[in-house]
Amino acid sequence: MEGVDYLSDERNKAQFDVDAMKVAWAGSREAFEVSDRIAKLVANDPAFEKFSRPMLGRKELFKSTLRKAAHAWKLIIDLRLSEEEATLLRHYIDEPAYTDLQWEMFIPAIEGQGTEEQKRKWLPLARKMQVIGCYAQTELGHGSNVQGLETTATFDPQSDAFVINSPTLTSSKWWPGGMGKVSTHGIVYARLILDGQFHGVHGFIVQLRNLENHSPVPGITVGDIGLKFGNGAYNTMDNGVLRFDHVRIPRNQMLMRVSQVTKEGKFVQSDVPRQLIYGTMVYVRQKIVANAFKALSRAVCIATRYSAVRRQFGSRNGGPETQVIDYKTQQSRLFPLLASAYAFRFVSEWLKWLYTDVKQRLEANDFSTLPEAHACTAGLKSLTTAATADGIEECRKLCGGHGYLVSSGLPELLAVYVPACTYEGDNVVMMLQVARFLVKTVSELGYKQPVGTTAYMRRVAALMQSNCTVKTAEDWLNPGAIVEAFESRSARMAVACAQRLTMFENPEEGFAELSADLVEVSLAHCQLIVVSKFIEKLQQQIHGNGVKQSLEVLCYVYALFLLHKHRGDFLATGYLTPKQASLANDQLRILYSKVRPNAIALVDSFNHTDHLLSSILGRYDGNVYPKLYEAAFKDPFNDSDVADGVHQYVQPILKQELQAAKL
Amino acid sequence: MEGVDYLSDERNKAQFDVDAMKVAWAGSREAFEVSDRIAKLVANDPAFEKFSRPMLGRKELFKSTLRKAAHAWKLIIDLRLSEEEATLLRHYIDEPAYTDLQWEMFIPAIEGQGTEEQKRKWLPLARKMQVIGCYAQTELGHGSNVQGLETTATFDPQSDAFVINSPTLTSSKWWPGGMGKVSTHGIVYARLILDGQFHGVHGFIVQLRNLENHSPVPGITVGDIGLKFGNGAYNTMDNGVLRFDHVRIPRNQMLMRVSQVTKEGKFVQSDVPRQLIYGTMVYVRQKIVANAFKALSRAVCIATRYSAVRRQFGSRNGGPETQVIDYKTQQSRLFPLLASAYAFRFVSEWLKWLYTDVKQRLEANDFSTLPEAHACTAGLKSLTTAATADGIEECRKLCGGHGYLVSSGLPELLAVYVPACTYEGDNVVMMLQVARFLVKTVSELGYKQPVGTTAYMRRVAALMQSNCTVKTAEDWLNPGAIVEAFESRSARMAVACAQRLTMFENPEEGFAELSADLVEVSLAHCQLIVVSKFIEKLQQQIHGNGVKQSLEVLCYVYALFLLHKHRGDFLATGYLTPKQASLANDQLRILYSKVRPNAIALVDSFNHTDHLLSSILGRYDGNVYPKLYEAAFKDPFNDSDVADGVHQYVQPILKQELQAAKL
Repeated sequence: MEGVDYLSDERNKAQFDVDAMKVAWAGSREAFEVSDRIAKLVANDPAFEKFSRPMLGRKELFKSTLRKAAHAWKLIIDLRLSEEEATLLRHYIDEPAYTDLQWEMFIPAIEGQGTEEQKRKWLPLARKMQVIGCYAQTELGHGSNVQGLETTATFDPQSDAFVINSPTLTSSKWWPGGMGKVSTHGIVYARLILDGQFHGVHGFIVQLRNLENHSPVPGITVGDIGLKFGNGAYNTMDNGVLRFDHVRIPRNQMLMRVSQVTKEGKFVQSDVPRQLIYGTMVYVRQKIVANAFKALSRAVCIATRYSAVRRQFGSRNGGPETQVIDYKTQQSRLFPLLASAYAFRFVSEWLKWLYTDVKQRLEANDFSTLPEAHACTAGLKSLTTAATADGIEECRKLCGGHGYLVSSGLPELLAVYVPACTYEGDNVVMMLQVARFLVKTVSELGYKQPVGTTAYMRRVAALMQSNCTVKTAEDWLNPGAIVEAFESRSARMAVACAQRLTMFENPEEGFAELSADLVEVSLAHCQLIVVSKFIEKLQQQIHGNGVKQSLEVLCYVYALFLLHKHRGDFLATGYLTPKQASLANDQLRILYSKVRPNAIALVDSFNHTDHLLSSILGRYDGNVYPKLYEAAFKDPFNDSDVADGVHQYVQPILKQELQAAKL
Repeated sequence: MEGVDYLSDERNKAQFDVDAMKVAWAGSREAFEVSDRIAKLVANDPAFEKFSRPMLGRKELFKSTLRKAAHAWKLIIDLRLSEEEATLLRHYIDEPAYTDLQWEMFIPAIEGQGTEEQKRKWLPLARKMQVIGCYAQTELGHGSNVQGLETTATFDPQSDAFVINSPTLTSSKWWPGGMGKVSTHGIVYARLILDGQFHGVHGFIVQLRNLENHSPVPGITVGDIGLKFGNGAYNTMDNGVLRFDHVRIPRNQMLMRVSQVTKEGKFVQSDVPRQLIYGTMVYVRQKIVANAFKALSRAVCIATRYSAVRRQFGSRNGGPETQVIDYKTQQSRLFPLLASAYAFRFVSEWLKWLYTDVKQRLEANDFSTLPEAHACTAGLKSLTTAATADGIEECRKLCGGHGYLVSSGLPELLAVYVPACTYEGDNVVMMLQVARFLVKTVSELGYKQPVGTTAYMRRVAALMQSNCTVKTAEDWLNPGAIVEAFESRSARMAVACAQRLTMFENPEEGFAELSADLVEVSLAHCQLIVVSKFIEKLQQQIHGNGVKQSLEVLCYVYALFLLHKHRGDFLATGYLTPKQASLANDQLRILYSKVRPNAIALVDSFNHTDHLLSSILGRYDGNVYPKLYEAAFKDPFNDSDVADGVHQYVQPILKQELQAAKL
């Protein structure tokens, strides 16, 4: 029945104030209110309907995205939305579009790398959408290694212009979002050539399309790179391929804040510190971590609600079967993901602070914390995106067969999310950067104080020797014991790996040889960060009945789940005994029972609208089966009882008339 | 350039006879030849083109599948293909279709559960495709728990007929392949009601559609359940929803080999042993394991070839960058999957033998090995499908950004494969069945000899006490040491869990409480099986230069990779010291270097055609970039430079005329 809440019994079990938890999740009352308002604005606007999205053909899908983007821009203007509100609006529309690149890459790149003059010229145009830009960095043959890009920008002093060219097939720009069909301009990264000399890779503003009729300008060959993973998903975006055939741009379209080319073709470095670029990286990565908790929380919300609706086995005397959420096997897979969503939420909050801190220091020419911030954000990008991608798929599996239906919302969520593991730095490459920093930190311990998230390394001597004092399962409910365990594991692994590296004659060869182990070291360090920041969050004031207590349970679940999963590390480093590891696992089971009554309320606290979830299994009201049934018969494939092709290709088989049939 | 083999350098590195390895992979010279012949037949027939499949809309896609199925049936008849050849043909067409259900479920169900009379009537019709059948078991509200099905079959002695009915919404049949649009008949599982009494769930042959015009027969509401995960993928199949409104079928359409209903409405059990059904399960599961190695080998083949083509970083003096397959991080993710493909290939070969053995014993009324065979196949189904699903996604990630393109072949392979983790027994439910058997085995050790894959439990006392004697990395290259380690781990974990279970007053409650740990016990046992069967395979004669040696390396990679990944188990049970675990990891790195020169040849040995792989990244000739570029511009989305919707929805924004535009 419409209007009935089939999950109300579950909601009544909650042992905390859900409204207060919503505020804690959002970060503040104000943040909650603005998010809630914009989410509802989108959910209630039929122009943003997305349930049928996965069924659209590519052209139709893309057109529909363009329509939504235009409608959104109209709303932003009409309702005079602030920049924060406009960003939220795009988030809640939940459909990758060229406007993401405009606001998240094109404009920030000009802000960060443009001169004052360039900013005065280009930013107003971009902010009014009189030009639409993309970020044209990766090439067909070149991803992670920016220094390997092949596109050239050769300065011609005669005409005071750069000639942008694609000298090889592999130099074709490939992947940039918005580039395939929409962007009028791009920030194009190319090898700067002055008088036959290579001067590094730089960004150039290049016009790609005619503003009047949208055709590619002369010298540009451009198109879409083709279908990507999943139904709907990232296929709303025109990721593009582009080749330049000696395209000329004025000299003042090289982004010249950091390096300049003079009229005479001389290369000049400004006194702007090159470290600024790392500030941008910290910014981009904290955004990626924020996207991780948003995506994971959606998947967990769907799987948790459906696990309370779905019943299987365990019927007694013909009564209802057991809710699958009551099975320990379900809990042991689902609740750590629920806890991870909260853990990533709070580490993301901390990263937001870190970015502000880094920015202030950069402005004061203090670069001391930058390498640590750079490593830590690289690691957290890797950890959270990998865990989120795996977590979404695990949630899909936790929904059993029905999770395989597009109408569960999970296939599209997975398909649209997984590129996060690769873009903005492949996750393994990121972890190797962390490892490099950790090894350096260890090797310098004698004379340099580790800072920030590596500060625990100051106590390395103690951490190498101390042993865990846990004697009962209860003893694990102790933040001090947990942090000490994670610090010891991480410190011991880092020191052991650093020592093994010294045995190689060539340190680079050693690093390459041990790289798989180094990735494990980095993961240990990054898990420590997430656990620590969750614990630190709980040391702050948190309002609302039962809210802090429920979060404490989740924090313990997160930490002890990791400890159990990686008990090999904890045991191998000798910090834990098998008995202590086993006690952690016992405590974990007890914790799952504590999460159970709060499970639905904990996912309600994400405040996701049914529009955002776009999932029949994850409906707020739990009215799953009638809606699945209804959706099936609404599918256009069921327009007729006899499908197209049956008369032509099945009936002749049945009637043994195949030889005569036209195939 | 066409015709050039860009991977020939890689192929020249091979240290073994590739043709002999192809035979080893196929199982025999004859098996290789028939597979090779049918694979090429499909690859060379333009009717089976599938590269554009992911771009088709649902109706178009489905029609194309029907066309291929008809063409295949015509070939089977025209070429007088044997049953084995016909099965291979369907496999190489690589497109889920209603014919899969006809041959793999409908016909075998009648063979297994029908009386002689029923077989005489229905099998010829089915084998000539004069009826097309599906297997209608799962319902909207009921998956794993067959006893919970709600569809009813009520016997009406007056008319000597069963009345098939769907009493509730959740009793709607949901998921059966082929049912949505094609099947004329179904084996419908329903609760048998005789005179108001429930007599268990049984199968009934029910006509669903009119054979003349394909319309549903009166009382049947049927349709497709809607879009599933991925582009193309399982959307070629009409998984269906179906409701019965008091549909009557003659009494003789209940499958009555095991149980009968007499004219008078009396329930009679025949003397056919009920264990026969487990024989079918063993058969179905060994097929699933075979599908696992086929799917995993495809993904590994694509990722390995592309890893040899792709270069990134590491350029020296402007020379080419390093092939990504040379990075230890890539090797440590890719080579264990390559080894897993071989491991699953050989365990599948053994399962085929096991099924024959079980069948012979059943025929001789020997049920002694059945519980063990049932548990072991359940566990191997779970282990191999889970590892394959994860492995395909890992291969996709190993291909970096380009793996996200549908033209890489990996998104569709993943989407079409993942349901294997859920169907024919959810993977976690399967592992709990294994656990139940292991716990029973342990508890009966005093008076009952464990058989088959649990025979090692006879040595449980020794396994609980012995310790690993490995002293150097080299010592790990010893099958005895490896098997002993896996046996000890498994035995110790099983015994520990069984002991903990005895501490619960109610054993069922204990089993539920410890279920997550029990799943870990089962996994340990199943990994032991796969490792042992790989080692046993290598004790047989294997022909060809270097073939056995290369397989030995893979076998060690598989075992030591698992040992490293699960070192927590090995350390916690006290069998290994941290030092010994670390030596295993050192040996693993050495082994990766031994795999490296053989990598391409090892995936060539799968003998996959480019048609089957349907992957630009995995092309045999390694000609990746030109073909990616070409495919992009062939995409219909690039038919015009200016995409549909740009004039309507982008130009008004650029020209600041949004207010006037019609959105």
